[in-house]
Amino acid sequence: MIQMQENSDPRHTIEVCFTPKLFPEIATRENYIVVLADILRATTSICAAFANGVKSIIPVATLDEAREMKSKGFLVASEQDGKKLDFADFGNSAFNFSREAVGGKTLVYCTTNGTRALDIARSAEKIAIGAFVNLAALTQWLVAENKNVVILCSGWKNKFCLEDALFAGALTRNLLDAGRFETACDSANASLDLWQAAQPDILAYIEKAAHRHRLKKLGLDDVIPYSFTLDSTLVVPVFEGTEILNVV
Amino acid sequence: MIQMQENSDPRHTIEVCFTPKLFPEIATRENYIVVLADILRATTSICAAFANGVKSIIPVATLDEAREMKSKGFLVASEQDGKKLDFADFGNSAFNFSREAVGGKTLVYCTTNGTRALDIARSAEKIAIGAFVNLAALTQWLVAENKNVVILCSGWKNKFCLEDALFAGALTRNLLDAGRFETACDSANASLDLWQAAQPDILAYIEKAAHRHRLKKLGLDDVIPYSFTLDSTLVVPVFEGTEILNVV
Repeated sequence: MIQMQENSDPRHTIEVCFTPKLFPEIATRENYIVVLADILRATTSICAAFANGVKSIIPVATLDEAREMKSKGFLVASEQDGKKLDFADFGNSAFNFSREAVGGKTLVYCTTNGTRALDIARSAEKIAIGAFVNLAALTQWLVAENKNVVILCSGWKNKFCLEDALFAGALTRNLLDAGRFETACDSANASLDLWQAAQPDILAYIEKAAHRHRLKKLGLDDVIPYSFTLDSTLVVPVFEGTEILNVV
Repeated sequence: MIQMQENSDPRHTIEVCFTPKLFPEIATRENYIVVLADILRATTSICAAFANGVKSIIPVATLDEAREMKSKGFLVASEQDGKKLDFADFGNSAFNFSREAVGGKTLVYCTTNGTRALDIARSAEKIAIGAFVNLAALTQWLVAENKNVVILCSGWKNKFCLEDALFAGALTRNLLDAGRFETACDSANASLDLWQAAQPDILAYIEKAAHRHRLKKLGLDDVIPYSFTLDSTLVVPVFEGTEILNVV
């Protein structure tokens, strides 16, 4: 009887959206949570900031907004094409957000990729911040939330990005293994196979990602091993209205 | 010395575009050939028609155009969401285009997916029709053409489709193996891994593709084994101006 009850539980769907430009095409229209993934670098960095005790993060989508928040006295992280902007306190590397720098403070975060994707996903009931560094905690939280999941890869200038797709595969794998989700989404199935192909050496696999080479050219690739380290933190940052808060 | 000359040959790029909606984001802006892939079903069917001696195919992007061409006396293939339309002579299944039906004739071809993608790609120098059924012949022709290649997956209603991505991986594999191409495109690298994952049993792999299930529901999945049979024909259909002709 217990078995029958388990089987009769409604399963929730998983969809993967490879770039924000494809978000309008997703099938799920209600009762869903978006997980935003920008592995290199916004969502990894946001997790790092919460791991180091940031109080909240206010995401902004444009440089003008970031500059205005700086003039109001906020701590501001802002970069363009991977480079810190002059007016900002930090660029967007996870390594900038030490406990000394951000602990107990509110941080304004602007990025060319991640926060624009956040803006596009505002129709979701909740938007969670996903990265390899919080994969297990995020999985546990999503299972408890009991809603459909759309994994939104922020990509690079609207293009498909290998590192975000890998994360989508890892999270889809975890959710399917948890037994309360199912998927009929080709992008989710492709992501699962890419995640499988990346085993057992994710860092070796990611050598072929185009964005990894962009960061290397900019001297910003020191953060890559950290970005692909699973479960270094238990935070689950969630965008609620105007700011991102850790909900666990 | 011969080795040095071979190394100094300029290599051409391969990019993969997972849906027509992402076509504006491709990096290659000049000197390129688009390979259009709509494995289930337009590009497979177009290859089948040429294999059976069709003289030329006039692609149209809308049902109104297809209806108008029918009224002018043309043979018309037209379907919507996989179903033949009343005014048309055929739906779009490869099995409709027997030698008796199309040999020596001009066929007007309208489809919800493939011809719209063809329209989007008109900026290319040439647009070739790609499918598993003409993979080897297409590879040989592309190597001889000596230009950059963009593989445009027609997808399904602007979404990523597994079967088109698999084809992109198969063609990318062939072109890289030919030694005159290179790629730094994440979508191309992902396609290669998906093609690898689909070995050695492509039909078993494609069971998880969403579009395969759509066709099954419509009773149109009889053509699937044919669609994933490699190299059953040596045709290379190419769109030139207003019509598609076999160029080999």
